[in-house]
Amino acid sequence: MRVIDLIIKKRNGAELSDDEIDFFIQGFTQGDIPDYQAAAWAMAIFLKGMTSTETVALTMAMVRSGKQLDLSSVAPIVADKHSTGGVGDKTTMLVAPLVAATGLPVGKMSGRGLGYFGGTIDKLETIPGFRATLSESEFRAGLAKVGLVITGQSSELAPADGKLYALRDVTGTVESLPLIASSIMSKKIAAGANCIVLDVKYGKGAFMKTLTEATALAEAMVAIGLGLGRKVRAVLSSMEQPLGYAVGNALEVREAIQTLQGHGPEDLLELAYLLGSQLLLMAGRAKDETEARVQLKTALESGAAFAKYKAFIANQGGDTSVLENPERLPQAPLIEELAAMQSGYIQNIDAEKIGMVAHELGAGRKSKTDPIDPAVGLILHHKVGDRVEVGEPLVQIHASQQLAIENVRRLLQTAYTFS
Amino acid sequence: MRVIDLIIKKRNGAELSDDEIDFFIQGFTQGDIPDYQAAAWAMAIFLKGMTSTETVALTMAMVRSGKQLDLSSVAPIVADKHSTGGVGDKTTMLVAPLVAATGLPVGKMSGRGLGYFGGTIDKLETIPGFRATLSESEFRAGLAKVGLVITGQSSELAPADGKLYALRDVTGTVESLPLIASSIMSKKIAAGANCIVLDVKYGKGAFMKTLTEATALAEAMVAIGLGLGRKVRAVLSSMEQPLGYAVGNALEVREAIQTLQGHGPEDLLELAYLLGSQLLLMAGRAKDETEARVQLKTALESGAAFAKYKAFIANQGGDTSVLENPERLPQAPLIEELAAMQSGYIQNIDAEKIGMVAHELGAGRKSKTDPIDPAVGLILHHKVGDRVEVGEPLVQIHASQQLAIENVRRLLQTAYTFS
Repeated sequence: MRVIDLIIKKRNGAELSDDEIDFFIQGFTQGDIPDYQAAAWAMAIFLKGMTSTETVALTMAMVRSGKQLDLSSVAPIVADKHSTGGVGDKTTMLVAPLVAATGLPVGKMSGRGLGYFGGTIDKLETIPGFRATLSESEFRAGLAKVGLVITGQSSELAPADGKLYALRDVTGTVESLPLIASSIMSKKIAAGANCIVLDVKYGKGAFMKTLTEATALAEAMVAIGLGLGRKVRAVLSSMEQPLGYAVGNALEVREAIQTLQGHGPEDLLELAYLLGSQLLLMAGRAKDETEARVQLKTALESGAAFAKYKAFIANQGGDTSVLENPERLPQAPLIEELAAMQSGYIQNIDAEKIGMVAHELGAGRKSKTDPIDPAVGLILHHKVGDRVEVGEPLVQIHASQQLAIENVRRLLQTAYTFS
Repeated sequence: MRVIDLIIKKRNGAELSDDEIDFFIQGFTQGDIPDYQAAAWAMAIFLKGMTSTETVALTMAMVRSGKQLDLSSVAPIVADKHSTGGVGDKTTMLVAPLVAATGLPVGKMSGRGLGYFGGTIDKLETIPGFRATLSESEFRAGLAKVGLVITGQSSELAPADGKLYALRDVTGTVESLPLIASSIMSKKIAAGANCIVLDVKYGKGAFMKTLTEATALAEAMVAIGLGLGRKVRAVLSSMEQPLGYAVGNALEVREAIQTLQGHGPEDLLELAYLLGSQLLLMAGRAKDETEARVQLKTALESGAAFAKYKAFIANQGGDTSVLENPERLPQAPLIEELAAMQSGYIQNIDAEKIGMVAHELGAGRKSKTDPIDPAVGLILHHKVGDRVEVGEPLVQIHASQQLAIENVRRLLQTAYTFS
């Protein structure tokens, strides 16, 4: 098999066989296939696409490039949840304890955020002492003991994906459906969960801008999962306005805690129930969605979900006193309000612009090694449809520098449309 | 300007500006843009194409990556000829002395052959002592003194092209019209000629398999030349059957000598006249093609062209006694005939198969550093349309090993179709 022939075959739009894809991925991971050939191949995939069969083969090849966890000795069914990322998306911090509290173990590996948003790991790390880098045995132990464990991505799982993603990032080949789908799914498959719910977001604040694109990605990922013998469901959720009210790492942890304590925003809780019930259904823990929702609601209202969250944080070294006293989370030195420039009903809150503002304040990172500021971000006072009066506080800005506040005010104003 | 943005722009099918193309090419040549980004860019160009304006800009950027010869102090008009390559194509060895003998200086830089064929340089080097690697001052001196000089490609001219071609060769991005056209033309433009005739071959034995593809390439190259202020004409010539009778390096030199001595095959001589007359017309040395042909015919029949060829060979250190005694050219140890398997009129001689046979015998190279065997090759006894009887010699095989002859007999038989 010659590398050049595989590049030309894909360039010509033909379907690569499982063996050909595996040959390419293992060769690339081991350094036998140079970056420039992989770059040409990735661009050919970007422009010519991949069939469903090829995408499954690519995923499996990336899984085979590293270690695969087998969690069956810990628990027969392990649930996992993945979101394609959105502004104010703290759903993992709700779905995971809700589901775990019903008795279904949740074992999740999570990435750090790139682009506008901090990832779940960045958010959890705002809790003093929380350790997000677990060994495999710590991961297994947490799953067995607490039934809920969340760790950063292990470099031993799907190393091909890490290497290929780094190359795609600098060669203009990121936004390719088969490459995105296989990248996400290879990590999920390698991490060992057998019930996976995917939250595929669409809209201005999401990676996928349209419902059509999001649907295609969801279908591709579900097909991969089923092709590889996992139970997978995808939920399509809108990301036109931010989820909940808080945007920013510690601010989102605080909102998650409040929600687990029974004081959460409706949209956030609704999404958490929707995602959680899919996991219970896949795991055979409920006969229909209504029954699943009752279980999750009970877990919330009884305090069992919050207790599970506490046990999970404690197990990974986090200071649980923070959960009772969220003001002990990192706090920004400067807090200012942005007042509404006009009266009216809020017609739209541009999630993309809100994300850009949070990023500008320091809540996200520009490159992989950038630090994030855990404390900064925004608290929106309203959702779409709310009535506001001119001069009334619209958004609370949490910042580390006065200049940053001045810099974002204008953009923040333009994020709101009134009717 | 960011490299990644230029890759994405081309990937999305947009037109790159002159500055953007120049930025990419100079950055790549200087090593600031890594191979993997250039590979992704080349694949995007392959699949999304380039406009005529972009192709001119790419050519000029590659010219600017190195030295540009200005030959105006040597001669006001310098002619050059380029062929896209065909089986048995020894036309340069005829056109160059024919044109030079009429008084129009010919200064040509030529590549070595890749793929099936030896290049003009490989052919000329079968003449003992011939030096194909001239310095710039030797090139100028040869042009001034003899009016005819042919040298190998200087690495100082259009170095971006050499670097980009090497990358394209291993990334499946060779057969792209804008990349081929700019590659050829950048070397021609940098080498300083101001009248250029292009022999664009089409058919089974050529790089371009169809007339449509060849026409597109010819149009692209002419547009580049005109866009950069050079006089350029293209001739489309069929490469269904080999040109002339000889295929193989020294065998082709011998045929070229015989032609210059007045005993050449009609198809070869006709093409040489056609190409040569285009150069005379562009240079303003003839008022129409008829007049141009008369000049070239006179140069041949008077012996002036052969004398010019001799002077050219002598000037570059070649042993001119070989020209009078061609049996002193490298001779293959084994010469065998292939007999016709049937009687009939030859309907077709598959130039591609003939090329493959010559390559198999050792007349071409597989990689850039491979040696070629100067002596091996084929002498066809017939052209398409000739009548042959079963058992009559069809082709003479010149080989270095008996095994090679046995290996090619079958393929050679299948190259012929009878009616």
